[in-house]
Amino acid sequence: MIRIRLGMVGGGRGSFIGGVHRIAARMDGLYDVVAGVFSSDAERNKASAEDIGVEASRAYDSIEAMIEAERARADAIEAVVIATPNHLHFEAAKACLEAGLHVICDKPVTATLEDALELEKIVGRTGRHFFLTHNYTGYPMVRQMRDMIAAGELGELRTFHAEYVQDWLTEPMEQRGAKGAEWRTDPSKSGAGGSIGDIGTHAYNLAGFVLDRRPSHLLADLSSFVSGRRLDDNASILLRYEGGLKGTMWVSQVAVGNENHFTFRIYGSKGGLEWEQEDPNRLWFTQYGEPKQLLTRGGAQATYGNTQSIRIPAGHPEGFLEAFANLYRDAAAVLRSGETDRRLPLPGMKEGVQGLAFVDACVRSSSSNGAWVELIG
Amino acid sequence: MIRIRLGMVGGGRGSFIGGVHRIAARMDGLYDVVAGVFSSDAERNKASAEDIGVEASRAYDSIEAMIEAERARADAIEAVVIATPNHLHFEAAKACLEAGLHVICDKPVTATLEDALELEKIVGRTGRHFFLTHNYTGYPMVRQMRDMIAAGELGELRTFHAEYVQDWLTEPMEQRGAKGAEWRTDPSKSGAGGSIGDIGTHAYNLAGFVLDRRPSHLLADLSSFVSGRRLDDNASILLRYEGGLKGTMWVSQVAVGNENHFTFRIYGSKGGLEWEQEDPNRLWFTQYGEPKQLLTRGGAQATYGNTQSIRIPAGHPEGFLEAFANLYRDAAAVLRSGETDRRLPLPGMKEGVQGLAFVDACVRSSSSNGAWVELIG
Amino acid sequence: MIRIRLGMVGGGRGSFIGGVHRIAARMDGLYDVVAGVFSSDAERNKASAEDIGVEASRAYDSIEAMIEAERARADAIEAVVIATPNHLHFEAAKACLEAGLHVICDKPVTATLEDALELEKIVGRTGRHFFLTHNYTGYPMVRQMRDMIAAGELGELRTFHAEYVQDWLTEPMEQRGAKGAEWRTDPSKSGAGGSIGDIGTHAYNLAGFVLDRRPSHLLADLSSFVSGRRLDDNASILLRYEGGLKGTMWVSQVAVGNENHFTFRIYGSKGGLEWEQEDPNRLWFTQYGEPKQLLTRGGAQATYGNTQSIRIPAGHPEGFLEAFANLYRDAAAVLRSGETDRRLPLPGMKEGVQGLAFVDACVRSSSSNGAWVELIG
Amino acid sequence: MIRIRLGMVGGGRGSFIGGVHRIAARMDGLYDVVAGVFSSDAERNKASAEDIGVEASRAYDSIEAMIEAERARADAIEAVVIATPNHLHFEAAKACLEAGLHVICDKPVTATLEDALELEKIVGRTGRHFFLTHNYTGYPMVRQMRDMIAAGELGELRTFHAEYVQDWLTEPMEQRGAKGAEWRTDPSKSGAGGSIGDIGTHAYNLAGFVLDRRPSHLLADLSSFVSGRRLDDNASILLRYEGGLKGTMWVSQVAVGNENHFTFRIYGSKGGLEWEQEDPNRLWFTQYGEPKQLLTRGGAQATYGNTQSIRIPAGHPEGFLEAFANLYRDAAAVLRSGETDRRLPLPGMKEGVQGLAFVDACVRSSSSNGAWVELIG
Repeated sequence: MIRIRLGMVGGGRGSFIGGVHRIAARMDGLYDVVAGVFSSDAERNKASAEDIGVEASRAYDSIEAMIEAERARADAIEAVVIATPNHLHFEAAKACLEAGLHVICDKPVTATLEDALELEKIVGRTGRHFFLTHNYTGYPMVRQMRDMIAAGELGELRTFHAEYVQDWLTEPMEQRGAKGAEWRTDPSKSGAGGSIGDIGTHAYNLAGFVLDRRPSHLLADLSSFVSGRRLDDNASILLRYEGGLKGTMWVSQVAVGNENHFTFRIYGSKGGLEWEQEDPNRLWFTQYGEPKQLLTRGGAQATYGNTQSIRIPAGHPEGFLEAFANLYRDAAAVLRSGETDRRLPLPGMKEGVQGLAFVDACVRSSSSNGAWVELIG
Repeated sequence: MIRIRLGMVGGGRGSFIGGVHRIAARMDGLYDVVAGVFSSDAERNKASAEDIGVEASRAYDSIEAMIEAERARADAIEAVVIATPNHLHFEAAKACLEAGLHVICDKPVTATLEDALELEKIVGRTGRHFFLTHNYTGYPMVRQMRDMIAAGELGELRTFHAEYVQDWLTEPMEQRGAKGAEWRTDPSKSGAGGSIGDIGTHAYNLAGFVLDRRPSHLLADLSSFVSGRRLDDNASILLRYEGGLKGTMWVSQVAVGNENHFTFRIYGSKGGLEWEQEDPNRLWFTQYGEPKQLLTRGGAQATYGNTQSIRIPAGHPEGFLEAFANLYRDAAAVLRSGETDRRLPLPGMKEGVQGLAFVDACVRSSSSNGAWVELIG
Repeated sequence: MIRIRLGMVGGGRGSFIGGVHRIAARMDGLYDVVAGVFSSDAERNKASAEDIGVEASRAYDSIEAMIEAERARADAIEAVVIATPNHLHFEAAKACLEAGLHVICDKPVTATLEDALELEKIVGRTGRHFFLTHNYTGYPMVRQMRDMIAAGELGELRTFHAEYVQDWLTEPMEQRGAKGAEWRTDPSKSGAGGSIGDIGTHAYNLAGFVLDRRPSHLLADLSSFVSGRRLDDNASILLRYEGGLKGTMWVSQVAVGNENHFTFRIYGSKGGLEWEQEDPNRLWFTQYGEPKQLLTRGGAQATYGNTQSIRIPAGHPEGFLEAFANLYRDAAAVLRSGETDRRLPLPGMKEGVQGLAFVDACVRSSSSNGAWVELIG
Repeated sequence: MIRIRLGMVGGGRGSFIGGVHRIAARMDGLYDVVAGVFSSDAERNKASAEDIGVEASRAYDSIEAMIEAERARADAIEAVVIATPNHLHFEAAKACLEAGLHVICDKPVTATLEDALELEKIVGRTGRHFFLTHNYTGYPMVRQMRDMIAAGELGELRTFHAEYVQDWLTEPMEQRGAKGAEWRTDPSKSGAGGSIGDIGTHAYNLAGFVLDRRPSHLLADLSSFVSGRRLDDNASILLRYEGGLKGTMWVSQVAVGNENHFTFRIYGSKGGLEWEQEDPNRLWFTQYGEPKQLLTRGGAQATYGNTQSIRIPAGHPEGFLEAFANLYRDAAAVLRSGETDRRLPLPGMKEGVQGLAFVDACVRSSSSNGAWVELIG
């Protein structure tokens, strides 16, 4: 396959997620990053291009300049990766889509629900592909959960419990010059959600992916435990679904001792599944009345979503980067063939809107002292 | 020490908890069960006495008969153990207290908050000791959590997450003749709480013990997932405390794959603690910015509450029965000396009232569609 | 059942194992400790009796005195528990057996193989019951391993790996006044084996119990890592069995970070089993080509040996003391009925001899620079 | 940095390890695979080139052809990756080295010790760089173990225990057409070692890397449990070092229930370290008398070797491929700068010889019925 040529917006030196996108793009040899607007700072932009191996002439000052210049080339970029802080996603995506480029965008899709709904229209109108890197859905065992639930192995779904808790904002890092902490706790850059936007949307998206349904109502109790913090750093959320399914979600960035503790546990009338991101190659499955089973990446009783999402045999751990790369690999197939594998759906614009609707509902609920609210959008 | 002579109410053949009380009483050689009303069924009562090694003449038909006959003996019972279904606790405890006997009572203390408040008065009036077997507070590592929090090792408390989930009521066992399931799902015997009364009160009590504080408000979303079940079998509960501490609690008896999964995790401005009942000899402690530490029963950096609550060295697992027996051992010291070790407080009548107030608040909240309510009592 | 009356030899104040025997004896209400020679020190003997609740008149100065005085009583002791350092087992056991008493003896059975062989004859001649408290065989999941292997669930056995490693002798505790360390590292009290006698015999016995076979040859490499230590504190042992089974064993008391890490893993042509003493309620079972299963104490697919060895439901951890008490409970049945449950064999004199033969072979091998030697006895 | 141009020998369609090398080479954007002899089968060679994105004209029929043709190009390959079965390594490496190419070779370096010693001379003579992909030394926590031991944090080293056990050869897969099983159990392709060559050399190399020393003597008991198998599938190995350090190693490919269970545990007079490949982001560290600590990839108290070997923050699991890619990344630095970072030594020719010397000694020992032998080479 001829590699897909990518341009990049954001993600230059100092960005954690920019490097992740590039590794994910490179891992299977399906993409080349050949151009970009890596930073609004000219020096940093240039240096980043050099780091990455992009020709100096293709490190552009602005998205407009990139679009303009690339349009003229035979080897022009075909798609862009957007890896800026949240508030810049909308304009970047809009410009690229309207220029006919496909978009791979980091989450959350935009800073506000309004922007997300507007962007959804633009995606529809332009007909371009739009991928949202809710990377945790790339994990083989997460895909196996989805497959098993779809196959009815849990019976009627009853309740799930999702946790996404970290501790890196236990102290006011944003007041100590940590860039990543600064914009993530700044409403003008992140939007209305703090931890719920940064990591809660991941948990919410993973639940939607695994369960293949979305709640009708939720209730959220948001906290900002660190003095002076402007956005939430901890959230307890209850979710209700049509048909009786209920969920709870706990999101925190102040849970001392948790590096990136993201777990999903789901129970039905016939069985239960339990998964943990820090031990991602394993999945616990219990059929009611039977011993608990340890299912593994590429192991016995692997489903389609599992076997299609691995590179190396069971027992050889794959991790975060491989899961992220699975989205890139699957997106490459879509970009080349135009068709999505229905059994491996990729998060996109719809999931982006849902994520913002989740943040919006959490904020509305919490400002009503933790009342039940309906999800919009 | 001369052994304390116990009478027993309930807990005969077929009772899980009756046997537990007896093992706990025997373990340290501090008690003898010498009399009882083990069952309302005469045959079963007699057979139970024989099983236990109680003389046939001291297997009584009723509490009144036991009180009457024992009063006349030089070697009369000094205290009673109440191990009946919940709705029978009140009358049994009342009669015994008024007869001058100390009481060791299984939880929840009564079936209703009204009864609990009434019983609290009787305890006060009679001046007898009243112990409530919230046995999980007997675990050495639970006591270490309390000690460490009291010593300020977590800094200012922010949020905790408690889970007590099982799966033994995943199917309608109460419709299949399982005695334990029958009364636990029958409001006339259990009171208004199902899972929240049976196991939620344990989680709530443990939180109170470890944190040394009680919430002012809570919100509960109760479910009965099994068709025809009259009480809750799953609950999501949010708790708010004066001073900003918040907690979440998840209680379930339909979480397939969980035998007796009871965990407590608490986070403050300086550190975090994480404990799990199915692995009770271990406690995870993280000081912010430092590696996670594994604290063990009787191991390095054990606190007073830990070292006072063990029988054998680190690495030799103690379990549920030893934790239960710790309450008995500590109660024996109180019964003989009249004084409680302030560093090892035992659950009693006050905690009983708090437990029923918790059930009451959960039910009120849930019937108001999961609204915030104040705790009473 | 009328309680069995026990005398005790050793196990007074300051002894770890004495207390363990008493808790195990009391747990199920089947025994009473009513007499003893708890210490060779008269004061300590008296004080120990008081601690334990034995009448002062039955705290004897010597075994002979105990035998003499008890013989005259209607309520004489029926059996003795021997809980002294190893080198005193032989004389105590001999005297008691010849006086017609049954014996419950701590391991290893004697300090030398010669003594063990001699004692075996005495047991045979007197016809008394002799129980050896290799307590780890009392764990329900260990018994389940034995059952499953006997039922052929692993196919043809190929290899096992046993580890029993601790760290409490990492430093020269015996030179710092620690009693338990002193006699355990003193050849005149322990015999020729240090760690191999103290804990290696447990691992060896457990292997024999689970596999129902004994090796023909072994090779041992013993070390004394701590300067000045007179007995081994670390051992690597290879074992060969008739029919091709091979085993490895690693024993250590200087493995820093291991409290009482005792594991047993066994593999055959069809499956594998893995168990760990510090997490004793679980057993991992894999059928070749299938997902690993988590079997639990009292859980799904429990075998006879599992279900007969529990007191409380799955998920409520039982530990070291309950496993120890299982030997006492099963021994009580034998003492009262005269018959052993063939499905729950108890370690006795034969296992005692085997344990000493193991120590003897390890020492012979190691003194020949780690050569293969045949087991004797 | 300009990417290093690689040719590849072996590793075409159907090869597990070929794909691993390519992912590792691509991950950090430091290499391009531009040529190769991917298979001796012409069709498969061509198809493999197409899969990989190598121009058809650079998919050569033989190593000689590749050397010849590439020599003429301005963009010629600079190094080769050798990923064939073991017995083909020697000729391939020799030819490439003599043609002035650097070599990245899969392990074990050759099929025989003689070949390894001969190749060592060729490396010396040609002055080319030679990297051996003992990839487990690329794990951050393995590097941290090395750093901590070098810094004396364990005190004087006493004993280690290494396990590398799998189960994929439990049944005679080599008789059922599994290619990977065929050559690995065929002495003419693998050399004299079965499991000890395939995975034992990894364990042995990791021990050497972490401990920075090699044993003087070893003793091995090799087994072939599967009927008809010509090489060992299970091995127990004892190791002795100058100065008193001892090690044990257990290697198996028939341990049912183990996917790729590779652990390393090392104990000294002051502390212990424990690491497991299937949970590679964690390392357990105990200082004698202190609680066990959980050290993590990129976490608190990370050493140089840890922090230099990561791409993403703690809590975001990295795995086997990232560890493998660390060797490629470090090798790229050497290839470009000519200098190795002394703190991050890469396995090379010397380690290759040591690995074969290990296999040779194991086989010699085992054929002498498990006698102690000296290591040669």
